[in-house]
Amino acid sequence: MDILSVVGLVLAFFALVGGAILRGAGAMALVSVEAFIIVGIGTIAAICVQTPLSVMKHALSIFPWAMKPPALNPENLIKKMVEWSNVARKQGLLGLEPVLNQEPDAFVRKALQLVVDGSEPDAIRGIMEVELGAREHADTLGAKVFEGMGVYSPTLGIIGAVLGLISVMQNLADPSKLGPGIASAFTATIYGVSLANLFFLPVSAKLKVAIAAQAQVREMVIEGMISIAQGENPRAIESKLQGYLH
Amino acid sequence: MDILSVVGLVLAFFALVGGAILRGAGAMALVSVEAFIIVGIGTIAAICVQTPLSVMKHALSIFPWAMKPPALNPENLIKKMVEWSNVARKQGLLGLEPVLNQEPDAFVRKALQLVVDGSEPDAIRGIMEVELGAREHADTLGAKVFEGMGVYSPTLGIIGAVLGLISVMQNLADPSKLGPGIASAFTATIYGVSLANLFFLPVSAKLKVAIAAQAQVREMVIEGMISIAQGENPRAIESKLQGYLH
Amino acid sequence: MDILSVVGLVLAFFALVGGAILRGAGAMALVSVEAFIIVGIGTIAAICVQTPLSVMKHALSIFPWAMKPPALNPENLIKKMVEWSNVARKQGLLGLEPVLNQEPDAFVRKALQLVVDGSEPDAIRGIMEVELGAREHADTLGAKVFEGMGVYSPTLGIIGAVLGLISVMQNLADPSKLGPGIASAFTATIYGVSLANLFFLPVSAKLKVAIAAQAQVREMVIEGMISIAQGENPRAIESKLQGYLH
Amino acid sequence: MDILSVVGLVLAFFALVGGAILRGAGAMALVSVEAFIIVGIGTIAAICVQTPLSVMKHALSIFPWAMKPPALNPENLIKKMVEWSNVARKQGLLGLEPVLNQEPDAFVRKALQLVVDGSEPDAIRGIMEVELGAREHADTLGAKVFEGMGVYSPTLGIIGAVLGLISVMQNLADPSKLGPGIASAFTATIYGVSLANLFFLPVSAKLKVAIAAQAQVREMVIEGMISIAQGENPRAIESKLQGYLH
Amino acid sequence: MDILSVVGLVLAFFALVGGAILRGAGAMALVSVEAFIIVGIGTIAAICVQTPLSVMKHALSIFPWAMKPPALNPENLIKKMVEWSNVARKQGLLGLEPVLNQEPDAFVRKALQLVVDGSEPDAIRGIMEVELGAREHADTLGAKVFEGMGVYSPTLGIIGAVLGLISVMQNLADPSKLGPGIASAFTATIYGVSLANLFFLPVSAKLKVAIAAQAQVREMVIEGMISIAQGENPRAIESKLQGYLH
Repeated sequence: MDILSVVGLVLAFFALVGGAILRGAGAMALVSVEAFIIVGIGTIAAICVQTPLSVMKHALSIFPWAMKPPALNPENLIKKMVEWSNVARKQGLLGLEPVLNQEPDAFVRKALQLVVDGSEPDAIRGIMEVELGAREHADTLGAKVFEGMGVYSPTLGIIGAVLGLISVMQNLADPSKLGPGIASAFTATIYGVSLANLFFLPVSAKLKVAIAAQAQVREMVIEGMISIAQGENPRAIESKLQGYLH
Repeated sequence: MDILSVVGLVLAFFALVGGAILRGAGAMALVSVEAFIIVGIGTIAAICVQTPLSVMKHALSIFPWAMKPPALNPENLIKKMVEWSNVARKQGLLGLEPVLNQEPDAFVRKALQLVVDGSEPDAIRGIMEVELGAREHADTLGAKVFEGMGVYSPTLGIIGAVLGLISVMQNLADPSKLGPGIASAFTATIYGVSLANLFFLPVSAKLKVAIAAQAQVREMVIEGMISIAQGENPRAIESKLQGYLH
Repeated sequence: MDILSVVGLVLAFFALVGGAILRGAGAMALVSVEAFIIVGIGTIAAICVQTPLSVMKHALSIFPWAMKPPALNPENLIKKMVEWSNVARKQGLLGLEPVLNQEPDAFVRKALQLVVDGSEPDAIRGIMEVELGAREHADTLGAKVFEGMGVYSPTLGIIGAVLGLISVMQNLADPSKLGPGIASAFTATIYGVSLANLFFLPVSAKLKVAIAAQAQVREMVIEGMISIAQGENPRAIESKLQGYLH
Repeated sequence: MDILSVVGLVLAFFALVGGAILRGAGAMALVSVEAFIIVGIGTIAAICVQTPLSVMKHALSIFPWAMKPPALNPENLIKKMVEWSNVARKQGLLGLEPVLNQEPDAFVRKALQLVVDGSEPDAIRGIMEVELGAREHADTLGAKVFEGMGVYSPTLGIIGAVLGLISVMQNLADPSKLGPGIASAFTATIYGVSLANLFFLPVSAKLKVAIAAQAQVREMVIEGMISIAQGENPRAIESKLQGYLH
Repeated sequence: MDILSVVGLVLAFFALVGGAILRGAGAMALVSVEAFIIVGIGTIAAICVQTPLSVMKHALSIFPWAMKPPALNPENLIKKMVEWSNVARKQGLLGLEPVLNQEPDAFVRKALQLVVDGSEPDAIRGIMEVELGAREHADTLGAKVFEGMGVYSPTLGIIGAVLGLISVMQNLADPSKLGPGIASAFTATIYGVSLANLFFLPVSAKLKVAIAAQAQVREMVIEGMISIAQGENPRAIESKLQGYLH
């Protein structure tokens, strides 16, 4: 669990509700069914029009990374690959076959399979970079679903506010309703801007960092497996791969 | 039919009309002929100045992809290409000639023709990537027509609102007209922002995803056809091409 | 003449003037000498500070492309190059010398000259891509002049409106002048936003599409002339070049 | 210590406080606990949701660069590398071993180690560019933390202002509270916009310049160490490396 | 002197002052010491925090290019390089040594030195492109200083306006001060938006055009000097280099 995500969401709640109370607007000023319908449902509407079903499913499946990014453990991967390079130098590439079934990560396993099959280094790189690129592309489309919601929700907050103001303006004759009417119109703005800036955009940004970190680790795996296929010195491999750890 | 597009448009309608009613503005507050003329016709005007006729026609022809993206079925394509690689290894590249006439997709057919003609792998890649790039460029220009409308419609909403406010300001003397005047001025804003954020921008984004997916499948076709031309192992081809499926 | 440009400008005029009349603001609300001075002259001022004289001249010289893009006719160019490849295969590259003087397009002529001179394919590509890049760069700078005007004019509309509001605020004592004062202040906003969104930005976008189309055709010419220099099969050349037509 | 950073922060304080006093708003108008809670805590909340813990720590560790960029001294590095190339030409690459332990910079030391080990120039470039890229990527993620805060703080200023306006609107009945209420609502806007434009965004921009300068110096180190490994002429190395100094 | 820059600045002054007078706000409405302090000093503060001292100095040193771009004269350079290629073909590369001391431009001289020293074409390209890149990077950082000021000054205009409105709101009791107070608050907006759009952003854009033009001419010099080093035909060199002139 990424501790900062929890801290951030708690602080966001505190800043909004605490701020509303301290300001004298009261916490109830933040509650509005109409604003929820316009901003919440409107944002969902926009993102549904924008997103193919398969991308939407993928976005939901990677959403947990915002709270708990996938465990990458590149140090451990380096240790494993150095071990494998030792095995390969002693027993030949076929000596890695028993390892193949124990490897839990599908990406690493595919690369290892290519090495065991005796593929050319260039072929390994070509095939694995297609794999890396396709996964990164799919994950990035998922992260962009949340970015899209962060772009649409403030504009739906504006629509909600303007609808509220229209309602107020139609009843200007009764000044006693003017203030509360405008106040409630603004709630939609708060919803739209808060959802975007305290949730959707930060979540999308965090997913993108997690995706980039994963891609970098996979670049490292490709580099390492090619070095193994070329029978490079285990210590040289270790030193090279450690360059990715920064 | 992409179910999310339909859901999205229904939700968008519900958020706007439901929101207007719940807010007390009433559904009629969303109806305004003047606002329609300024925002609708103005947006069409801007996009007509911006877009050559051929691009406009292409944009309209790919618009249905927003509701129903082109069926790509890459799994099926991989199966076909693996089959062809078997044929090619047994009967030579000319053995693929009978397949040529049955292939429905023009892009795949052109690549297959080059393979049957015995073209060099580099030539196949060069020619087919020009083809891929030109199609992707044309489709992207089409998607940008909707993006352009999504950029222009909110600014025309602002023009509509300001024209309405000018009219109100010219008649400040009669306060009873102030409220309804401002209310009706805001309708143009609702039109402009809603059209952009609930229709044009999401449609353009969905088209771009569809175009990118198509380009990725075509990259896979190029890779596969070159592998066939080089007489690679059918199982190796299958494993390589499956890397594109993520 | 690009019919959509004319349609677009007529619709833009209709949306603005018709909207102003229907709104009750009246067409005269769109006429203001002060607003014209601030927005029109201010936008010209900003773009003059931004643009070197040579770029400004070039921008004016390519402006007509917004109404009537340069005739490219790539189909015809393909036919010509296929013909030339036939001539080259029968009579040698020198057989193309008589064609040289009849070729109207300077870019094609330069490439043809290189072919006739027997230049290496790599040299032809290098020289012609510099030529293509330099022309595309110069044209793009021209298109950006209109983009710049589209960026500056709305901000000058804001300056005009704020100046008008300052004037109104200085005379708050007389409420009868309040409404018309604000109304007239807003006219500058209408000018700035309309000029940008109904003219400058669409024109710049259309010029960029025309420039990209021209660059694509020139890429095709380079590819074709190199194929001729390499003595490729005329039918193969035709098939390859047709990939650019999408 | 970068003198301009200090000057800038002092001027920023002077512009804000001096401006508030001269305007007649008074310095106290800039003090508001509620605004601080909403803008300050809200911005921290957003950036916590966005940023993994490791990136946050790295961001804090490079923050001092905004006040005092890392000393790069490329002239000195060139002098050292020229010296080393002399040593290498006279005593062979192993003659550089004693220097290895004295080199304080980890990046330079790693490159030097590779040279002493007799690695191939291509391998040195490959390994060191991975190292350079990974460090630059990590530092850039750190700089983007401050950029993110600069993006979120103005929107939280808007949230704070709208919450304040809601509070004012709920109490429209008492006009005497209207002015001070609106005034205090605006304080949140001042906080959000000032924090972003006088602190977060400039700090992030300065960090990015420092990161780019460091990357450029490291490119120079890579180039220099490869030249040493290839036994190039010391004077030629010096002339080449001086090209990086502009 | 670039005539358009002068024309632009004069027109900008005329649009602002003339507009203010015609609008009835009066030229004095544009004069405000407080607004100057907040916008002027605040913008300087932000850019000082953002910019290292060395970049700030470089920015000031290239600022005159906005009024008078560096004389490039590529036609003359081509003529010189064609001449040198003639000399080189007749007397060998060493025949260019006497020219070396007369060449005024440091970039051209460095390239010429490499040619005279008999460096390999690849080495000449590598070294000179580092030189070109480093100079272009430094100049671009300078141009971005003005861009940064154009980004910060409107936001400081908003801060100035909000501070003014706060002051007005604190004294709502006296309505006679309301109008002039708001009017004077808006002056800061005019300052911020005008400085950005009539000065900083256009100046930055013009500097970037000048920097790109210089880089293009230097690319041409590199290409030409390599052609000389390879002993190419003077007429072929001339034809190739003329491709850069568009």
